[in-house]
Amino acid sequence: MCQLMGMSANVPTDARFSFTGLVERAGRTDVHKDGWGITFYRGKGVQEFRDLQAGSDCDVANFLKQQCIKSDIVIGHIRQANVGALTLENTHPFRRELWGENWTFAHNGQLKDIDTILPLGRYLPVGTTDSEHIFCWLLDQIATAFPTRPSDPTQLYAFIYEKRAQLHAYDVCNFMLSDGHALIVHCSNNLHWITRRAPFGPALLKDIEVSVDFSTETTEKDVVTVFATQPLTTNETWIKMQPGEMLVFEQGEQTGRFLASDD
Amino acid sequence: MCQLMGMSANVPTDARFSFTGLVERAGRTDVHKDGWGITFYRGKGVQEFRDLQAGSDCDVANFLKQQCIKSDIVIGHIRQANVGALTLENTHPFRRELWGENWTFAHNGQLKDIDTILPLGRYLPVGTTDSEHIFCWLLDQIATAFPTRPSDPTQLYAFIYEKRAQLHAYDVCNFMLSDGHALIVHCSNNLHWITRRAPFGPALLKDIEVSVDFSTETTEKDVVTVFATQPLTTNETWIKMQPGEMLVFEQGEQTGRFLASDD
Repeated sequence: MCQLMGMSANVPTDARFSFTGLVERAGRTDVHKDGWGITFYRGKGVQEFRDLQAGSDCDVANFLKQQCIKSDIVIGHIRQANVGALTLENTHPFRRELWGENWTFAHNGQLKDIDTILPLGRYLPVGTTDSEHIFCWLLDQIATAFPTRPSDPTQLYAFIYEKRAQLHAYDVCNFMLSDGHALIVHCSNNLHWITRRAPFGPALLKDIEVSVDFSTETTEKDVVTVFATQPLTTNETWIKMQPGEMLVFEQGEQTGRFLASDD
Repeated sequence: MCQLMGMSANVPTDARFSFTGLVERAGRTDVHKDGWGITFYRGKGVQEFRDLQAGSDCDVANFLKQQCIKSDIVIGHIRQANVGALTLENTHPFRRELWGENWTFAHNGQLKDIDTILPLGRYLPVGTTDSEHIFCWLLDQIATAFPTRPSDPTQLYAFIYEKRAQLHAYDVCNFMLSDGHALIVHCSNNLHWITRRAPFGPALLKDIEVSVDFSTETTEKDVVTVFATQPLTTNETWIKMQPGEMLVFEQGEQTGRFLASDD
């Protein structure tokens, strides 16, 4: 299995604090040491970092902990390999272009042999994970249904929710997806989130003795939502997502929520 | 305009020396300070670094100068913006997937208004550069001509050479392209290369006082070819490519050369 992290903010925000907590779980406080990756949206472009080394003991990750990269959407992932070899192409997040936009996907779960069930189209996996397979399948389904970006994004999110039902019914499928406009998060069994807004206070990481006082780092208007497989801090109340729930966040605020009655 | 750097090697090789010379030209010894990027192939996967800051004065670039990332194909780029704003999505190299392989492209030249001439298909630019437009066009042409990877790669390279004629005839188009198998380099007016093999000797960068003794870094079997817009070292003989020439390198060795008689 793996662990996920995501961020949506209404102002370009430094995600170092959350990333620092996440990568501790990549070999130190937890076992997710088979590579890691993080994608920062900055406008339409993305800045992406990944490595095969355990995130808790990796030069690139250590460097990132010192770098103030301000971004409005972030998706991060630490891997514990089950399906797919320990190679760079099997590290998440995965990225493809659709409608001239960067789409990013990271996954936590297991969908063994799903590649025999879900047909592929214009997007093919570079690596051998079930995760990249379902991303390619999902993006092809979207591309086929919507040759251009629908003017009403709710249509798009509803379509994604409908499609993810196959994955959720099959096995564990927690994922984070973004097109640079929204952060879309689906929970099969294990995802938590928190929205921070004024009045901001201090936060203390769970996995390493690091704290931050957000009131000194933010303005009154900032809204920042962070997702993680398990809560990253000890002194805040994180909300646990429900099985089958999909949330859509734009600029730090929830703009969509899907939960089928049969989930 | 911009500057390019590329490497093809028969063993995963550290490209720091060349990168260190290149990024000096990104704001210190030359004017290419509008963002930079570098893509390292490691197997089928890629590790990619980019930033909007001038490469000569950038934390991420400085970090990379200290990092030993061993790769068999590298494409690097420093940008001087002419077409397209100063945004992250306009930094090279660009990347798309075709046939389940990572394709990477970087460009030096100017093909103003080429987007009005070359039609796009399944790949759309995320940014606004002429460079990304021609990459999307070229990859769509390849995807349409070859639904799967041709068993004889010479067919593929000949097709790319035929297609690039339109670009070369239009204006300046130096480019580097890779699918992870080969490094394909096209020269309109300005590209140089050198192959290093045993007996290895010392090399001295042109743009900064840095030298390396390759005999201490290599084995007798190593073959490493480096491309650059302008020679990166002062004590070695670089070969200047001819206008209209396209070279294909695999594992450090030249495996294809194209030069139309009318170029």
